[in-house]
Amino acid sequence: MAIVLGDNRYGKAETRLVRVVRDGARHELRDLTVSVALAGDLAASHTDGDNSGVLPTDTQKNTVYAFAGRYGVGAIEDFALRLARHFVDTQPSIHQARVSIVEHGWQRLGPHSFQHSGAETRTATVTCDADGAWVVSGVADLVLLNSTGSEFVGFVKDEYTTLPEAKDRILATAVSARWRHAAASSSDWDESFRGARELLVASFVDTYSRSLQQTLYAMGHRLLEGRPELAEVRLAMPNRHHLLVDLAPFGLANPNEVFVATDRPYGLIEGTVVRDDAPPPGLAWW
Amino acid sequence: MAIVLGDNRYGKAETRLVRVVRDGARHELRDLTVSVALAGDLAASHTDGDNSGVLPTDTQKNTVYAFAGRYGVGAIEDFALRLARHFVDTQPSIHQARVSIVEHGWQRLGPHSFQHSGAETRTATVTCDADGAWVVSGVADLVLLNSTGSEFVGFVKDEYTTLPEAKDRILATAVSARWRHAAASSSDWDESFRGARELLVASFVDTYSRSLQQTLYAMGHRLLEGRPELAEVRLAMPNRHHLLVDLAPFGLANPNEVFVATDRPYGLIEGTVVRDDAPPPGLAWW
Amino acid sequence: MAIVLGDNRYGKAETRLVRVVRDGARHELRDLTVSVALAGDLAASHTDGDNSGVLPTDTQKNTVYAFAGRYGVGAIEDFALRLARHFVDTQPSIHQARVSIVEHGWQRLGPHSFQHSGAETRTATVTCDADGAWVVSGVADLVLLNSTGSEFVGFVKDEYTTLPEAKDRILATAVSARWRHAAASSSDWDESFRGARELLVASFVDTYSRSLQQTLYAMGHRLLEGRPELAEVRLAMPNRHHLLVDLAPFGLANPNEVFVATDRPYGLIEGTVVRDDAPPPGLAWW
Amino acid sequence: MAIVLGDNRYGKAETRLVRVVRDGARHELRDLTVSVALAGDLAASHTDGDNSGVLPTDTQKNTVYAFAGRYGVGAIEDFALRLARHFVDTQPSIHQARVSIVEHGWQRLGPHSFQHSGAETRTATVTCDADGAWVVSGVADLVLLNSTGSEFVGFVKDEYTTLPEAKDRILATAVSARWRHAAASSSDWDESFRGARELLVASFVDTYSRSLQQTLYAMGHRLLEGRPELAEVRLAMPNRHHLLVDLAPFGLANPNEVFVATDRPYGLIEGTVVRDDAPPPGLAWW
Repeated sequence: MAIVLGDNRYGKAETRLVRVVRDGARHELRDLTVSVALAGDLAASHTDGDNSGVLPTDTQKNTVYAFAGRYGVGAIEDFALRLARHFVDTQPSIHQARVSIVEHGWQRLGPHSFQHSGAETRTATVTCDADGAWVVSGVADLVLLNSTGSEFVGFVKDEYTTLPEAKDRILATAVSARWRHAAASSSDWDESFRGARELLVASFVDTYSRSLQQTLYAMGHRLLEGRPELAEVRLAMPNRHHLLVDLAPFGLANPNEVFVATDRPYGLIEGTVVRDDAPPPGLAWW
Repeated sequence: MAIVLGDNRYGKAETRLVRVVRDGARHELRDLTVSVALAGDLAASHTDGDNSGVLPTDTQKNTVYAFAGRYGVGAIEDFALRLARHFVDTQPSIHQARVSIVEHGWQRLGPHSFQHSGAETRTATVTCDADGAWVVSGVADLVLLNSTGSEFVGFVKDEYTTLPEAKDRILATAVSARWRHAAASSSDWDESFRGARELLVASFVDTYSRSLQQTLYAMGHRLLEGRPELAEVRLAMPNRHHLLVDLAPFGLANPNEVFVATDRPYGLIEGTVVRDDAPPPGLAWW
Repeated sequence: MAIVLGDNRYGKAETRLVRVVRDGARHELRDLTVSVALAGDLAASHTDGDNSGVLPTDTQKNTVYAFAGRYGVGAIEDFALRLARHFVDTQPSIHQARVSIVEHGWQRLGPHSFQHSGAETRTATVTCDADGAWVVSGVADLVLLNSTGSEFVGFVKDEYTTLPEAKDRILATAVSARWRHAAASSSDWDESFRGARELLVASFVDTYSRSLQQTLYAMGHRLLEGRPELAEVRLAMPNRHHLLVDLAPFGLANPNEVFVATDRPYGLIEGTVVRDDAPPPGLAWW
Repeated sequence: MAIVLGDNRYGKAETRLVRVVRDGARHELRDLTVSVALAGDLAASHTDGDNSGVLPTDTQKNTVYAFAGRYGVGAIEDFALRLARHFVDTQPSIHQARVSIVEHGWQRLGPHSFQHSGAETRTATVTCDADGAWVVSGVADLVLLNSTGSEFVGFVKDEYTTLPEAKDRILATAVSARWRHAAASSSDWDESFRGARELLVASFVDTYSRSLQQTLYAMGHRLLEGRPELAEVRLAMPNRHHLLVDLAPFGLANPNEVFVATDRPYGLIEGTVVRDDAPPPGLAWW
């Protein structure tokens, strides 16, 4: 019996990059948080303090900025592909690289003026090894609410169940969705993202919901139906409960008008929707 | 010499209220966080544990929900006025009441579907006593950025100064502004808010900035110029520094294209702009 | 009628400083977040973009680090006094300076090893002008709980009251307290802080509580009684509600054993306790 | 080709529970955040809105409170085992259950008085299916710092490397560690936790560090060496960078005394240490 090193990786997390494109009077802005994770022949750094295979995380950060200057950013999937490929191709000790990017949105107010869009972000995670690359795009903190068109009935009742059936309730959630592209080959990532996001939102709006599970599945199904370039989607959707306030002590009815929005606890629904002939995921979810 | 009770107040903070208006198929939604603070003849509760003048904070919360059911919400200024007035008028022990409301925005996606708008919020604070009421409206976390049209030169240099002068820089801030209405009398608060917000944004966009101080003053000045119903505005604007990355070690120029957005520390500019014939503030800022 | 500049100030907020004292093998560590705010003849920077009186916030940050190197830190009150005095004495345009410091605690694990102590922080705010200085010390996020010895009865009942009287409840709060020293003259600030904090904690533990108001007043009173160097204390204490869970539907009693700790809403009690012969506060609370 | 449901689970997240044991005058307190996730025959709820196999997340929450009342809490591993087993054993549709508990610490101040310990938490995750159970214990947000005894030299230098070698630096991290028990059979979980935590802290303090990777491995190795009941440990350790401030512009040396503690970006080191004869992990990390 021996004690040994298992899986490991390291990298620079949350490098904040704002890239301005200044071709003429009308500027473009991309605002990113970039995280890098690398793995490979790194056992000696753990067991012997031998850093001869370790590319410093500070260098990884520098590379993000230098690439943004030299090549620009473009779609975050392209930027992540370029960075991840670079680490694997130039560092003999590095066999896998994952670059995760969160893009913070800004709305245009003028030729060089912008307003921050809020909490919703676009995400991309690219993983590379010597043989290939895998691209996962996504959205996070997309907060949606239907004020009707949602019920929750017919569920299991056991001795600890006190929840009444609800024929008409508020359904609200903060969607986190990540979808795997069937191929990492060149694509119009921006167009793909816009289309995917639109399908998710539309299916949330259109679905009469018998549970958040059903809504989640409808969203994933619609996404894959509408976007042939995608193989799989993973969704995590907290149920942001809106509880009907009992106004009877004050002599008032409450016909689904007055709600308390609660912070904790919350239901959390997680699910995957996938094509049955999807290519294997490889390192997509590494 | 004696040890005595000084200023004091108490109340329920951060009551979360979502109010749906369901007149027909097209719903309206208002999403509020309501905080109440009350003061008056409350010394005995502190010094003797005599609660005979204390309206429980739980009752204050109930009142928020009951009023939302009975009267609806409407503009947050109106809702705050109604609540603040109620506490002062119905409780003999309560002489001042302050109701502060933060409204979280939702964009419409369909007749009963909405998307959360993000971090920016609309605010209102109403203070009442037996004689009158004071209304302060505002906006918080309105994050704005100009990618050019900003400089910072001609400042004091002392022995601890290393900052180079900047002829062209990014200017970004999260505006918190609160403006005092000259009168608390009935008004179209929603229209007033929309107009005020628009002036703040427009002046940020239009102002060539020699400092964030100058931008702050220009915003406040434009607000009062354009909205005669307002007497005073208080602005707090953190300087969300975007530092130019030195790419020279990598053989690259950086002509104002690649920036690191930093979290801390940050400059913080606070200032008031006021009419010289404004009515006295009374309890507006209590 | 004219629109004019009112009160204003500016400075660098949240400069993060860790100062190690390395005299011999046993190191000392002080971990601070320092915020500076300055005011004076700064109208021209607002109205004309004339920065000739503006000491950059970047310079203020540099000064924090340089002073930490040159003089060390010592008690945070001393460090804040030194910094605030410097800005007023060396900058003709600056007439008031406020330096606020939050100290993050570390427990010793070895001669040069430490463990972070958690959320509780020690605070100091020093304000200077040409004539004098005012020192306010304090504590924040000191979270205390009594699992019995607390009741809440005899309160006002109106038509919106549903809260039952409680003869035995959990009382929990996160104490934020700031106490004003009668004089800013040299003092053993560390000893004063330790003594003050001990009195606050002891009075929370010892007081049979008829309301959080009563506990707040008892804490402030005990503090001033025990520390003659202090003139006034301001306390803000949120009521971190622990609600008894109704286990009756499951055939179980709940004799004050099972509670849900709620996030929002929460009661918020704010109060001042002061000596009736205290010197005037001057700029202490500026 | 078809679009199908893949992996999925659901449950109630972040149920806040405070349990007081009141045997006599000296109370005991356990403060937990409990999250439940369930999986099984749940396809119909996703695809057909058929909730006949869905135990509501509200019922899961009720079960947490009811079990706390009926059985008490004890060690969080025991409480999680009891809950996870219950869901699998009583619900025909549920085949796997995971219960994750975060315990918030309180230090004793008196017979029924406590002070919150801060950010560090103890964690346990138990997963059950029909055949067995797996127990993972851990610690999170354990923030440690060595002010010397750390270097980082001999690393890869490429064209993007600007980091100088450091012979003496601050090493600080927030340890998140989760260790898998070889068996889920009855054990003194509290004693095991105390011993494990002590080994992690001691090895951080004792290790002369050539990199955070080396420190991570040393901590994991020491843990498994000292605790035969443990099979594997997974560590995630952000490098909380403390950068030496350049005081040369102010005519000052900085012999490792004045540092800026940065928020972002940060290095992130993740690694597993495992016995080579460890039993297979089963659902431990599900």
